[in-house]
Amino acid sequence: MELSSLRYAKRFDHVSGSAIREIFKIIAQPGMISFAGGNPSPAALPDAKAAEIAAQVLTENGKQILQYGATEGYPRFVESLRAWIPEHLGFRAEGLLPVTGSTQAMDLLCKALINPGDRIIVENPSFLGNLQCMKLYEAELVPVRSGEDGLDPDHLEQLIREKQPKMVYTIPTFQNPTGRTLSLEKRKRVAELAARYGVVIAEDDPYRDLRYRGESLPPIKSFDEAGWVVYLGSFSKIISPGMRVGFMAGDPGIIRKCTIGKQSSDLHTPNLTQAIVDQFLRRNLLPDHIRAISADYAAQCNTMLDCLETFPEGVRFTRPEGGLFIWLELPERLNAQALLTQAIERKVAFVPGTHFYTGGGHENTLRLNFSASTAEQIRTGMAVLRELISAALAE
Amino acid sequence: MELSSLRYAKRFDHVSGSAIREIFKIIAQPGMISFAGGNPSPAALPDAKAAEIAAQVLTENGKQILQYGATEGYPRFVESLRAWIPEHLGFRAEGLLPVTGSTQAMDLLCKALINPGDRIIVENPSFLGNLQCMKLYEAELVPVRSGEDGLDPDHLEQLIREKQPKMVYTIPTFQNPTGRTLSLEKRKRVAELAARYGVVIAEDDPYRDLRYRGESLPPIKSFDEAGWVVYLGSFSKIISPGMRVGFMAGDPGIIRKCTIGKQSSDLHTPNLTQAIVDQFLRRNLLPDHIRAISADYAAQCNTMLDCLETFPEGVRFTRPEGGLFIWLELPERLNAQALLTQAIERKVAFVPGTHFYTGGGHENTLRLNFSASTAEQIRTGMAVLRELISAALAE
Repeated sequence: MELSSLRYAKRFDHVSGSAIREIFKIIAQPGMISFAGGNPSPAALPDAKAAEIAAQVLTENGKQILQYGATEGYPRFVESLRAWIPEHLGFRAEGLLPVTGSTQAMDLLCKALINPGDRIIVENPSFLGNLQCMKLYEAELVPVRSGEDGLDPDHLEQLIREKQPKMVYTIPTFQNPTGRTLSLEKRKRVAELAARYGVVIAEDDPYRDLRYRGESLPPIKSFDEAGWVVYLGSFSKIISPGMRVGFMAGDPGIIRKCTIGKQSSDLHTPNLTQAIVDQFLRRNLLPDHIRAISADYAAQCNTMLDCLETFPEGVRFTRPEGGLFIWLELPERLNAQALLTQAIERKVAFVPGTHFYTGGGHENTLRLNFSASTAEQIRTGMAVLRELISAALAE
Repeated sequence: MELSSLRYAKRFDHVSGSAIREIFKIIAQPGMISFAGGNPSPAALPDAKAAEIAAQVLTENGKQILQYGATEGYPRFVESLRAWIPEHLGFRAEGLLPVTGSTQAMDLLCKALINPGDRIIVENPSFLGNLQCMKLYEAELVPVRSGEDGLDPDHLEQLIREKQPKMVYTIPTFQNPTGRTLSLEKRKRVAELAARYGVVIAEDDPYRDLRYRGESLPPIKSFDEAGWVVYLGSFSKIISPGMRVGFMAGDPGIIRKCTIGKQSSDLHTPNLTQAIVDQFLRRNLLPDHIRAISADYAAQCNTMLDCLETFPEGVRFTRPEGGLFIWLELPERLNAQALLTQAIERKVAFVPGTHFYTGGGHENTLRLNFSASTAEQIRTGMAVLRELISAALAE
């Protein structure tokens, strides 16, 4: 029988792969100035330290690291995380599971909780990768309104009553793609709503340590008394995304289901990458490292914001207090996809904002990343974008 | 609202976690002689080599390794695999995807293909971890009869006609848990049946390089002209299971769907572990390494078989040509779970065979692993088992 007769699973009916991952391939050309990814700066990646640590842990403990590990995590790393989380994040991690990047945490949470047709409330726009994950579990995505200080809790409450969702997915700190941060009051409200109505909150918080101004805010999880909030943590932005080490922390029952799900996802996260991150925690290397990379990223962010100040009237943009992204709204008649086509010819790339919206549209929006470019690249690339936008407005 | 009101996803209704993983925790006591796992021998784990390689690849190429990678795999590793597969396995890898242990390959294949209620034909007994994976995708598992030389193709054809399955899952070489190997003729038949009826074959082949006698047999995939066979490869048994590096090879369309599924499973397999395995291939370290560990495992296997020859009449066992496991059938009135309880008191462990059967039962069977124990441990542990079995038979 011809292979063309093969039918794929229904869960793929509305999923065609991440548009961003495809853009990445197009823009991987030499000489491209890319504001498209969410990549750490090469300078922020601790390669020499990782080489030293990898050799050390494999020399001292290689037999354990190369052997099968527990789904529940590499014991030393779990021990370090248990100490680090309350100190660093302000809550106790009763249930805890190291994962292969926080991408996997989202996958496991959906595996544990979502039946086809279940509703998940999401910020709109939101992180494309996790939206795709939820779609593969055939969830119905329900967008909640958001403003300058994050999602609108009144609208959230209304939607919870009307739609009876299973879960709320939020990136409260330096949100992807907008760079916006949920205020302290709203964090408390979200935790309260979760407990009042019995809705799981997936708090995705990979950017929180990259703060360039303002005061650090406690996670929603720290206001969670009833156990409905699951915190998704990541070391991708503060150590290495290529290492794929993150964790999920929450109610032991929920984490237990995720652990069973993980048994048949990848059995366990590689011991070696867990052991390397463990050393970063154990040797207390993170504070200095985060301070260094945040100083660089703050400067890059300011350079991009300075450039944006010179953009034509009608171009609106967020002024994030941290993270990796600035969000642009062009005048409505402009189209970011058309702009991208022109920009790529001039060797500048970004991601059109429409991809981040559950229902598409919003063709006048776009996301800019500043962490992966030097100040000079930012000035050069932003001059190109300003010129293209000005020309489009003059048409 | 109380968290106890939380309902988990329906896919967990018939899955309670791997019984084997739970047994592992009980038997992780000091002094335990464990025939329970599928662990490589500590001596077989190349810790010094891995330490040297990890330091080298991170020093030479650390910025790329620590950065986000492609879902399609770390480029150098993919390049090595593309050369190694035809040379080592005898087929061309048109579609190819590195995965986070071949456990993930099974997960992605189910994600790509299986709707709830779809049927998958499985050997019975079979590998528990992957049976659990299929159950989490709510597949209906249909057992096919097996004999000394693997699954019965006539019965397979009958089941394919009657049950119209989506997939056949087989471990053709030194099967887990029985140690049995599918004969050459039957390999050809399975590939033919797949093409004739349009059924995907998941060929799970992690043990093939651990051959202690007899001739190596080509994979089913090497007889696959129509593209229905997907080959699941693993470096867990020949380099390190803790590294979690495997691959899937097959039709580019199927692999593409799996790649999209992987985007939201873990985005990509850690670059570091891929880079380490790449060096094992690139430096051609595997032939010598496999020769060394196979010599050790062959001796361990023979020691265990010699012990079994002295067991009471009525105890039947397989004589595998390779792999990690020997399968025992006790006289029907004996119960392997009861035997395990007694054995653990005497510091000896194994896995009762009932766990490997889709429908349970077969309480008189058990699986013995010989790779993780020394000859002395094997002799001591097998003497305990012989004594307990003899006593039970005398009751």
